[in-house]
Amino acid sequence: MAEAARKPRPVRCIVKLGGAAITNKGELESIDEESLRSACAQLRQAMSDGAAPEKARGMDWSRRPGDPADPVVDAEGFAGMAGLGLDSNFVVVHGAGSFGHFQASRSGVHKGGLHSTLVKAGFVATRISVTSLNQEIVRALAREGIPSVGMSPFACGWSTQRRNLASANASQIIESLHAGFVPVLHGDAVLDESLDCTILSGDVIIRHLAQLLTPKYVVFLTDVHGVYDRPPTDPNAVLLKEIEVDDNGGWSIVKPALQGNRKGVEISVAAHDTTGGMETKILEAAVIARLGVDVYITKVDTEHSLRALKGDVNTSSDDWLGTVIRAAK
Amino acid sequence: MAEAARKPRPVRCIVKLGGAAITNKGELESIDEESLRSACAQLRQAMSDGAAPEKARGMDWSRRPGDPADPVVDAEGFAGMAGLGLDSNFVVVHGAGSFGHFQASRSGVHKGGLHSTLVKAGFVATRISVTSLNQEIVRALAREGIPSVGMSPFACGWSTQRRNLASANASQIIESLHAGFVPVLHGDAVLDESLDCTILSGDVIIRHLAQLLTPKYVVFLTDVHGVYDRPPTDPNAVLLKEIEVDDNGGWSIVKPALQGNRKGVEISVAAHDTTGGMETKILEAAVIARLGVDVYITKVDTEHSLRALKGDVNTSSDDWLGTVIRAAK
Repeated sequence: MAEAARKPRPVRCIVKLGGAAITNKGELESIDEESLRSACAQLRQAMSDGAAPEKARGMDWSRRPGDPADPVVDAEGFAGMAGLGLDSNFVVVHGAGSFGHFQASRSGVHKGGLHSTLVKAGFVATRISVTSLNQEIVRALAREGIPSVGMSPFACGWSTQRRNLASANASQIIESLHAGFVPVLHGDAVLDESLDCTILSGDVIIRHLAQLLTPKYVVFLTDVHGVYDRPPTDPNAVLLKEIEVDDNGGWSIVKPALQGNRKGVEISVAAHDTTGGMETKILEAAVIARLGVDVYITKVDTEHSLRALKGDVNTSSDDWLGTVIRAAK
Repeated sequence: MAEAARKPRPVRCIVKLGGAAITNKGELESIDEESLRSACAQLRQAMSDGAAPEKARGMDWSRRPGDPADPVVDAEGFAGMAGLGLDSNFVVVHGAGSFGHFQASRSGVHKGGLHSTLVKAGFVATRISVTSLNQEIVRALAREGIPSVGMSPFACGWSTQRRNLASANASQIIESLHAGFVPVLHGDAVLDESLDCTILSGDVIIRHLAQLLTPKYVVFLTDVHGVYDRPPTDPNAVLLKEIEVDDNGGWSIVKPALQGNRKGVEISVAAHDTTGGMETKILEAAVIARLGVDVYITKVDTEHSLRALKGDVNTSSDDWLGTVIRAAK
């Protein structure tokens, strides 16, 4: 194959399916099936270039637990299609939500130290939990006719040094995109050169992939409408619709115009979405925005999430609910 | 970390859990739970250096489908252990059995051609099926207290050219062994530089890993006692107990002494274990044997499989049932 042909198309979008958006918080290893189904269906809509049949042909040909019947495979239907009719040049990264956190926190995997039998067992248990979720998300995407392929950062050889990414080769992700597949990565337990092991969060993965792949835009789907000036459970919480990031990594709220001292504002997405907290999330998003890549943070399973996934967000109109983080012009 | 410290210990054993041994043939995506449990328990026995507690502390802290109760985590028990007491320097590779074959054969993934929507869908469906099995095997090993980590060849970036391994970096496998984990790989759908995609069999993975890691011995667990001179369902079938491989890759049967023309002998393990057939399997085993690594082929869930996993096989005694393939002296 010629080198030119192997050059990947520019990636259109990297999507974070937040743990809070697709799992039921507070219930161990429980998927929010309706939110996940909606996210996958909206992804299909966003990918569709008009040539895709309205009804998806499913690519999950495996049994479901408790399913007595063999899966239905529409091989003839697939064979008759000229193509999928999807712009599948997306990457999906998901968080852990109610998967993985329990196992990681019981054992202290994030702190490292594999000489401890508890940490070693917790590493194994955490990976089992997060890869179970990955498998379910790959299957949910495949049921919507999206050619998804699961890729665990640990298996890809990604590792950290003092919790910072040290080795994160994306060549297989690029090859998969080139072949027309949608890579599905996840927050994972990984080896750490200094600490033995730690947890690599989905947000750090997104930032790294955005730097490598320079997508047109990045979407974070979560369980609230976006970033607020205080915990969104507070009735006085104000949705921050537009945040600008300057060259020094500082950020300022462009919309709405807030009264009083902006600097002291306490911003928050969701209290239980805890990997690194919201400050870390905004910092990661700010790094992405400074690349010139718009970041949209919005609520799963709404008209706003569909528009974000399509890249169809206009902050000058008021009918889109969400937070845009972009570079200052 | 010093370079010397990163040098991996020599690998003790690479184990192939044959698809025929751990799944129910003829029933789509059905695990032979008893055989799998036995294989995992015997692996634990083989790894135990006497310091391991008799009762394993499970490392699968995830829910089982339909399980209403949260998993039991013996965090205090783990924290009180000085170590696992296991020589975990093993690699596990498993076949697909009743997982993956259905999806691959319906779509023709092994033939390649990702421009075909059917092949692309089949690639996705095949990976979902084989990674489901991988997840179940990792969990079964973890329940026996073995620190197992799933690693998909596709996600590891392994690829082929005209079905021959072209890129198969094992550095993450070596790092995982070094950290005390047991990598669990599997036959997988992979990208192929010439054909777009194909199926990479577990036997080819084993041969490649044996060349890279030079284990002390390699064990193939299957559903019959070893290699026979004709289909094992034939009542006159004779178990070939010892096969020698010469420098040219030719092989001859050392035990038992067969009457008639040896060259014409039809050898067979199990008719349904079809990836490449038995001729391919012996050829892969012959390549391993020529490295000076003994290969043991034997039946899962028997005293013979336990002895093979321990590396405790003596072909001069007659009480071990199985086939040894080794280099001619």
